[in-house]
Amino acid sequence: MSRIVQKFGGSSVADADSIKRVARRIADTKAAGNEVVIVISAMGDTTDELLDLAHRVSPNPTPRELDMLLTTGERQSAALLAMALSDLGVPARSYTGSQAGVITTGQHGDARIIDITPGRIMASLEQGNVVIVAGFQGVAQDTKDITTLGRGASDTTAVALAAAMRADYCEIYTDVDGVFTADPRIEPKARQIPVIGYEDMLELAASGAKVLHLRCVEYARAENVKIHVRSSFSYQPGTWVVDQSEINAKGSAMEQAIISGIAHDTSEAKITVVGVPDTIGMAARIFSVIAERQINVDMIVQNVSREGEGRTDISFTCSQGERGKAVDALNLAKDEIGFSAVMWNDAVGKVSVVGVGMRTHPGVTAKFFNALAAAGVNIDMISTSEIRISVVVDIADVRAAVQAAHTAFGLDADTDAVVYAGTGR
Amino acid sequence: MSRIVQKFGGSSVADADSIKRVARRIADTKAAGNEVVIVISAMGDTTDELLDLAHRVSPNPTPRELDMLLTTGERQSAALLAMALSDLGVPARSYTGSQAGVITTGQHGDARIIDITPGRIMASLEQGNVVIVAGFQGVAQDTKDITTLGRGASDTTAVALAAAMRADYCEIYTDVDGVFTADPRIEPKARQIPVIGYEDMLELAASGAKVLHLRCVEYARAENVKIHVRSSFSYQPGTWVVDQSEINAKGSAMEQAIISGIAHDTSEAKITVVGVPDTIGMAARIFSVIAERQINVDMIVQNVSREGEGRTDISFTCSQGERGKAVDALNLAKDEIGFSAVMWNDAVGKVSVVGVGMRTHPGVTAKFFNALAAAGVNIDMISTSEIRISVVVDIADVRAAVQAAHTAFGLDADTDAVVYAGTGR
Repeated sequence: MSRIVQKFGGSSVADADSIKRVARRIADTKAAGNEVVIVISAMGDTTDELLDLAHRVSPNPTPRELDMLLTTGERQSAALLAMALSDLGVPARSYTGSQAGVITTGQHGDARIIDITPGRIMASLEQGNVVIVAGFQGVAQDTKDITTLGRGASDTTAVALAAAMRADYCEIYTDVDGVFTADPRIEPKARQIPVIGYEDMLELAASGAKVLHLRCVEYARAENVKIHVRSSFSYQPGTWVVDQSEINAKGSAMEQAIISGIAHDTSEAKITVVGVPDTIGMAARIFSVIAERQINVDMIVQNVSREGEGRTDISFTCSQGERGKAVDALNLAKDEIGFSAVMWNDAVGKVSVVGVGMRTHPGVTAKFFNALAAAGVNIDMISTSEIRISVVVDIADVRAAVQAAHTAFGLDADTDAVVYAGTGR
Repeated sequence: MSRIVQKFGGSSVADADSIKRVARRIADTKAAGNEVVIVISAMGDTTDELLDLAHRVSPNPTPRELDMLLTTGERQSAALLAMALSDLGVPARSYTGSQAGVITTGQHGDARIIDITPGRIMASLEQGNVVIVAGFQGVAQDTKDITTLGRGASDTTAVALAAAMRADYCEIYTDVDGVFTADPRIEPKARQIPVIGYEDMLELAASGAKVLHLRCVEYARAENVKIHVRSSFSYQPGTWVVDQSEINAKGSAMEQAIISGIAHDTSEAKITVVGVPDTIGMAARIFSVIAERQINVDMIVQNVSREGEGRTDISFTCSQGERGKAVDALNLAKDEIGFSAVMWNDAVGKVSVVGVGMRTHPGVTAKFFNALAAAGVNIDMISTSEIRISVVVDIADVRAAVQAAHTAFGLDADTDAVVYAGTGR
């Protein structure tokens, strides 16, 4: 018998029929003798519809009240799933985030989990119930107000509950079969990864792989929660995300791939500050302007100073959504800092190769860049970490870059991957 | 400055525009220097839509989970109303029934309020907020599960909060201008009643007047909460429901109407048990059969025994919804009890004249029956209380009976009443 936390996303519970299908799947897990805790998202487009309603009432809805409103979506799907399980003869109880003891900060719309006090749901579990927790929500420690947890939050709720309830593992059900060596829509030869370490998964998530949210993986690594990412539309085994030491213990280093996967991200913009005086503290002043506006910067490249000019260019990337704010802020500081212009470009893409194997295998960078060159892809920016190499390229070259790297690092499958419709999160 | 609890029903918050309209109205009350507590129902048809969704998922939804599901409707309207108030510069906070301290029994779908612990909302009120409480819901004292309060429950929530928070009065906003001397759709000459005592209001509610629910009036009487029933579509004063002693103190008995109003009810069925052996304990056996099925009986009439036969007939009324169950139960007990047949009729209506004045004015019964006779209405059953006389008549005669009584007791207005569309509850 295992204690299992399972998370189902909005596309898994889009309508009454899919709720009943998910209920049958949960009933199977329970019938196999397991203790089962479910974290559930709102049905299909419910959250978007509620947001729409809020904006019809108010141009700028109060964050506290928006959280009160939006959290009803997960409560509805939780209650409906409990009904469907009861019809299958499986005792089930739904709980709000607050009832389940999900204690958060008070930052409405983007609260962080501080603690889980699972006494009530533990008791319910021990009485033989399937426990169903409304995802994406908690209760603020100080004000006792209802909060939402921000993007990817239901996954994080599931992992946090798995840690607090000492579950054997946490299953994240989505609309793909697991984590792939690349996005199968870009690289048809992408292979499903049977097992991956937290660090590689973190880098892939941070580099644009959408199957798991970064914060969820961070939480899992910190609490050493095993994650099983799998499809709610099939019974195939998915991808296990575990500590690297467990992977190392099972196979020799020789058998492991040097590179776990190739991620890409087309949601970023590139901003170049042109003609920056090449004096001490200039970069600090530029990024202080950006930081004051709460804009997250990803890659930064400072060009070599142009000879004899005493001036340089500094480029960085941020999300396209924040690009306008960043450009405006820089233009306001233009005279004070003394650079000559700000240029920006949304038509870029970032391609990253990720793998803990590169720590012990020199030559990965060279192989990656050679593959890009052979594919005719021009590199615009470069950044590296210990286990990741990222390049920014023209958006038109993203597909070619992913495919070239995928082949170069021996990741190609013999057959094409199956791609499911829908987005699943 | 007064402390006022205001309750708005589903028709007052049917869409985004009506929520904004209600918000402006509340803002006016607040701007006049009052402390304001709002109890809100779910938007328009939300509750019915959620019920529909539940039945698509489950043929027989678990009561606990149905309550979890349905209570989201009021939470949504509460949050939206708080947003709309914030936009008007009025600080507002929404609270679930549980957060507002509405403690109930654990009977899902029909819980009773046991206690209100208003500490949190009192503090919010004292901070200058408009407090908005999701109606129709509470939290079970024992299980801490979310409950719903059954029919008419948002009105009861409002009155219970008014009592617990020592409000000056409780305003129930609906889609009619107040309590009328008769249903204006039946009697166009019906007049709005400016003030009425709890007892008369209780009898009118129990006899079919739909503007206030019985339980809400009972609660108000027990806690001596003044209710102001008024229209959310106009600024006309409505009907005050207060203790009779306050009415007596303000005017001499001479000036008061003997009869407060005429109520009618076409939701009941009449059942007649024919040929009951005229021996001791027969009525007890018949109504034990009914009580075992949890069926509420309203009027009961036992005919005089037919001479020489030693048998009698017993008639009673119950709701049409329970009529089938009652007839089935009686037929099963037919041989054991020894009566000869069960007959039933849904095509009946009950007409009641109500007024504490009849305690001190003999002749009310005679005047009522004479008026019915003059109108050609045949009386089928009669039942009386100290301040009410009810008759059951053929459903085709209900309108004539109401109008005849209304005229006979001097209730006719000079002009016809204005009738609004919609049901409002």
